[in-house]
Amino acid sequence: MSSFEDADTEETVTSLQMTLYHPRHQRSGIFQSIKFCNRETLPTSEVVKFGRNNSTCRYTFQDKQVSRVQFSLQVFKKFDSSVVSFEIKNMSKKTNLLVDDKELGYLNKMDLPDKCLIRFGDYQFLVEKEDGESLEFFEIQFFLSIRPLLQENKWLPQKPTPECGSYSPCSIQNNSPMEVGENEW
Amino acid sequence: MSSFEDADTEETVTSLQMTLYHPRHQRSGIFQSIKFCNRETLPTSEVVKFGRNNSTCRYTFQDKQVSRVQFSLQVFKKFDSSVVSFEIKNMSKKTNLLVDDKELGYLNKMDLPDKCLIRFGDYQFLVEKEDGESLEFFEIQFFLSIRPLLQENKWLPQKPTPECGSYSPCSIQNNSPMEVGENEW
Repeated sequence: MSSFEDADTEETVTSLQMTLYHPRHQRSGIFQSIKFCNRETLPTSEVVKFGRNNSTCRYTFQDKQVSRVQFSLQVFKKFDSSVVSFEIKNMSKKTNLLVDDKELGYLNKMDLPDKCLIRFGDYQFLVEKEDGESLEFFEIQFFLSIRPLLQENKWLPQKPTPECGSYSPCSIQNNSPMEVGENEW
Repeated sequence: MSSFEDADTEETVTSLQMTLYHPRHQRSGIFQSIKFCNRETLPTSEVVKFGRNNSTCRYTFQDKQVSRVQFSLQVFKKFDSSVVSFEIKNMSKKTNLLVDDKELGYLNKMDLPDKCLIRFGDYQFLVEKEDGESLEFFEIQFFLSIRPLLQENKWLPQKPTPECGSYSPCSIQNNSPMEVGENEW
C-alpha cells in the first residue's frame, strides 16, 4: 500500500467565519493586527480571547475603548450532537455584549447560534459556523466589511457577492458607502 | 478619618469546597500535590483545569489513568443572578464524567449545581458552593475523605462532623472504614 492509501482519513474541521465592521477602522486601523482571510487552526481546548491586551488575547483591537479582554469564545459539544459548538462569554465589566438581541453583562455566557451578529460599542461581527468532523481542532477566519452589518435594526442573512464589486472579503475597499446597493454590505 | 474608615468595603468571595476521595490515595498518594484546607483565591477569568499535566493544570493527580486534562471549571454569571456560578466541561477523550447522574462525554459541559458529586473512574469529588459578593475573585478549598462519598448509589447530603473523630477534613486519617459509622464519610 502506498502512504496515501495507508494514511488516516482526513477530517474536516468546524470553521468559524467572522466578518468584522467598525466605522473607524479605515481611519484608525482598529483591526490592523487581524490577518484577514487567513485560515487559522486552533485546538478545541483553547479559550479564544478578544480584546485590547495582546498578552492574554489571541485577537486584539487597537482601540482604547475596548476592554483588556472583551469576550471569549470556546468550544464545547452539545449532548445530542456529533459536532462542536461555541460558547461566548462577555469578559468586559464596562460594556455589555449583544448576541443578536440577547444582552450579556459581565460574565454572562450563552451558546453561540450558528449564524449571529455580535455587537459591543460600535463593533459589529457577523459570525457564521460551518460544521466539520474534528473534535480536536477548529478553524477561524476573518473577513472585513466596509459597510455596517446591521441596517435598520436588522442584519442581512444573505451571503456577500464578491463578484459584484461592492464587497471584497479579503481587502479593505475604498468605495464609499453610496456606491453600493442598499442590500449589500 | 482613619484608613480603616476610609477603606473600601470588603467583599465576600464565592467559595468552592471540594472533598476528594480515591480508594488508592493512601497507598499511592494520588492527591499529594493538592494542598488540603488551604484557601486559594483565584481570578474569575481563570479556567481552572484538573488532570495529570502540571504545566496546563492548576490541580494535578498522580495517576497515569488520569487524562492530561480531565475536566475544567470556570466562572460565569447567570442572567438572573448577582452572584457567580460555575460551569464544568469534560476534557477527557477517554473517560466520561458524571455530575450527580448526568454523564458528560468529551467536550460536554453543564452548569454545576450548588452541591453535587463529580465522578470519573474511581474518583469521587463532593462539590459545595457558598455564595459571595465578588465578581472578580473566588476561592477554592480542598478536603480529603478517607471514606467513599457515594454509598449504595446515593451520596450523603449531611455535613461531616469532625468532632466525632471519624472524619478530619484537613488530614489523612488512619482509621479503618470499620471504625466509623455507616452514615459518616
